[in-house]
Amino acid sequence: MFTVGSQLSTGGRTGVISTPHGDIRTPAFIPVATRAAVRAVLPEPMRELGAQALLANAYHLYLQPGSDIVDEAGGFGRFMGWDGPTFTDSGGFQVLSLGAGFQKTLAMDAKGVTADDVIAEGKDRLATVDDEGVTFKSHLDGSRHRFTPEVSMGIQHQLGADIIFAFDELTTLMNSRGYQERSLDRTQRWAERCLTEHERLSAERSAKPAQALFGVVQGAQHEDLRRQAARGLRSLDFAGYGIGGAIEKENLATIVGWVTDELPDDRPRHLLGIGEPEDLFAGIEHGCDTFDCVQPSRVARSSRVYTSRGKENLLVAASRRRFEPIDPECDCYTCANYTRAYLHHLFKAKEYNAATLCTIHNERFIVRLVDRIRDAIDDGTYADYKADFLGRYTP
Amino acid sequence: MFTVGSQLSTGGRTGVISTPHGDIRTPAFIPVATRAAVRAVLPEPMRELGAQALLANAYHLYLQPGSDIVDEAGGFGRFMGWDGPTFTDSGGFQVLSLGAGFQKTLAMDAKGVTADDVIAEGKDRLATVDDEGVTFKSHLDGSRHRFTPEVSMGIQHQLGADIIFAFDELTTLMNSRGYQERSLDRTQRWAERCLTEHERLSAERSAKPAQALFGVVQGAQHEDLRRQAARGLRSLDFAGYGIGGAIEKENLATIVGWVTDELPDDRPRHLLGIGEPEDLFAGIEHGCDTFDCVQPSRVARSSRVYTSRGKENLLVAASRRRFEPIDPECDCYTCANYTRAYLHHLFKAKEYNAATLCTIHNERFIVRLVDRIRDAIDDGTYADYKADFLGRYTP
Repeated sequence: MFTVGSQLSTGGRTGVISTPHGDIRTPAFIPVATRAAVRAVLPEPMRELGAQALLANAYHLYLQPGSDIVDEAGGFGRFMGWDGPTFTDSGGFQVLSLGAGFQKTLAMDAKGVTADDVIAEGKDRLATVDDEGVTFKSHLDGSRHRFTPEVSMGIQHQLGADIIFAFDELTTLMNSRGYQERSLDRTQRWAERCLTEHERLSAERSAKPAQALFGVVQGAQHEDLRRQAARGLRSLDFAGYGIGGAIEKENLATIVGWVTDELPDDRPRHLLGIGEPEDLFAGIEHGCDTFDCVQPSRVARSSRVYTSRGKENLLVAASRRRFEPIDPECDCYTCANYTRAYLHHLFKAKEYNAATLCTIHNERFIVRLVDRIRDAIDDGTYADYKADFLGRYTP
Repeated sequence: MFTVGSQLSTGGRTGVISTPHGDIRTPAFIPVATRAAVRAVLPEPMRELGAQALLANAYHLYLQPGSDIVDEAGGFGRFMGWDGPTFTDSGGFQVLSLGAGFQKTLAMDAKGVTADDVIAEGKDRLATVDDEGVTFKSHLDGSRHRFTPEVSMGIQHQLGADIIFAFDELTTLMNSRGYQERSLDRTQRWAERCLTEHERLSAERSAKPAQALFGVVQGAQHEDLRRQAARGLRSLDFAGYGIGGAIEKENLATIVGWVTDELPDDRPRHLLGIGEPEDLFAGIEHGCDTFDCVQPSRVARSSRVYTSRGKENLLVAASRRRFEPIDPECDCYTCANYTRAYLHHLFKAKEYNAATLCTIHNERFIVRLVDRIRDAIDDGTYADYKADFLGRYTP
């Protein structure tokens, strides 16, 4: 399903991922449609701004409307009117970060209680992890649910995305070394169970388009654990790999480098939840092929837009009379048709279209950035393009 | 600026209103873009769904971003990326209904205080009307402002719509007969002042596209006052007429009939704030040419959609698995691409696109209804079309 094109000496490469719903030219930024909808933007503008695929969240769609309903609708792409390639994540991140208690856990860490103590204790209000799976409370109504590798595979088969991810355990940088080791063992065993269940379900649902399962490499900030995790997953037959978990920004390139060093070159690698320009350069340079992140959409809703100089806030009073586009060089629909003064007004007036127009701009900015990096790798001008972009851009 | 086409024996007619930004085939429903934006829908989908013109509110745009800013942007149409014909209302309705105290006034009526007592008293928290104009508090920040006929004309010239309205006083059905008479005298004098100021400003701003000023007929539920108001305005040189003020639904046809009976046939008539299907039939039948109403958009945001049977709520649990469009006969973008099950999910998940998709459907429904009435008048099949539509539709 993956063909490698040009390569950088650092391990970065271009390529093409083939899916039943079309090809993805990589590196590619995959916008997030958490609940089978990109917040405030319909599928057509997403296609027009160059999105090649969308990623939805298994956790959210399981809770609402229910993955059985999405299955009856023909999968999340058809449900939302998107006919291109699709991804779903496994829910592993969300059951621990949203499902209950992760924020609380981090707060408790600060007071000297380690994160694993709290998770291990299994207090009523927290998500609890055991060797079989994770029990958690819905962030919507507090109801109790349980995800296991098999449950996650069942949900993701119902959601019907072209690329799906193995169910993994999210740890934090504050978990102890011992906990990270135990967690990693568990994630490896879960990966095996996911593969088995995925094969079983694929046979059972053979009339539906084939789905490709990616294993997810955890291991936090530890080189030996990251390498061990990557080697462990490499020994299994995954169609591709996700790189997940707690990664401090300044170590991103290093950690990604350890992992891609161990992974096979002929399988695509997805860096989960990463989308800031400087991080995309780091990830791509070290061999990641696809990326997803809610950031372009989330910051747009709080009136912040990407420009070649960095993020700017349209709500500043200085925007009131700026009758010019966000970025005169931008080729997006918003910059072609609207001024900063108008967008400032929409945010002040709390109009829905403010979110729509700024999300279109931000998603286009990030999608185009990755497209240009891809072209630069193919043209042999990557180093120049990176120096030029990052020379002007302040994170 | 107005050419009459076919006519009904009841006074209804088809026609064409010519503006500097294009023609409007009448009768026509004009969707509302209160703050220079149709809530949750961009201009392109509005054009695609058949909207011929948009109407913005002088009161809202005066307060935010300020009509001077809209003027600098080239008028509200250009500001929001809409190149078709535009209307603005005068702010007369909003300064009394939103500006402060109108709700309160109505509440006090119920306790035996008449609305005019409260308005006349000029209590601090209320809008106060005097012969010169209206002083009111902003609903946004409580700041004090004053609208006069001259101020309203100045604002509407800055907003730059093709069709603008004279500044009038809104009364309620609970105002005393004596107050209605005094108010009507005032509205007539304000109409004269608006015309004078409009002519002065038009000469001063002669480089800009010509704007057409419509007088507004008030008179509440009283036949003699409505007729007197219409005759009074007819004696002045207005390009067209608005019909405004307090009208009980069951008397709509009767009241509109009194007014259009007095108005010249060669000028267009706009029925302000009316947009429910049954009211559109009544208004059109009695000679109204254009209509505006926030209703299609407002009810869409609360998950209610128009169908040939009446309004239905997509949030009902029965929608969860209805994998079919809102209305299989509807030709809108939403019905062509989305199911009730998906829209139900979007409302449950509080996704912005729920409002977008249902507003597109509702605006299309109402725009198309008026278009079909127009065709039926031209074809001589109006009575059949009305009987057929209202026979199935429950308000």
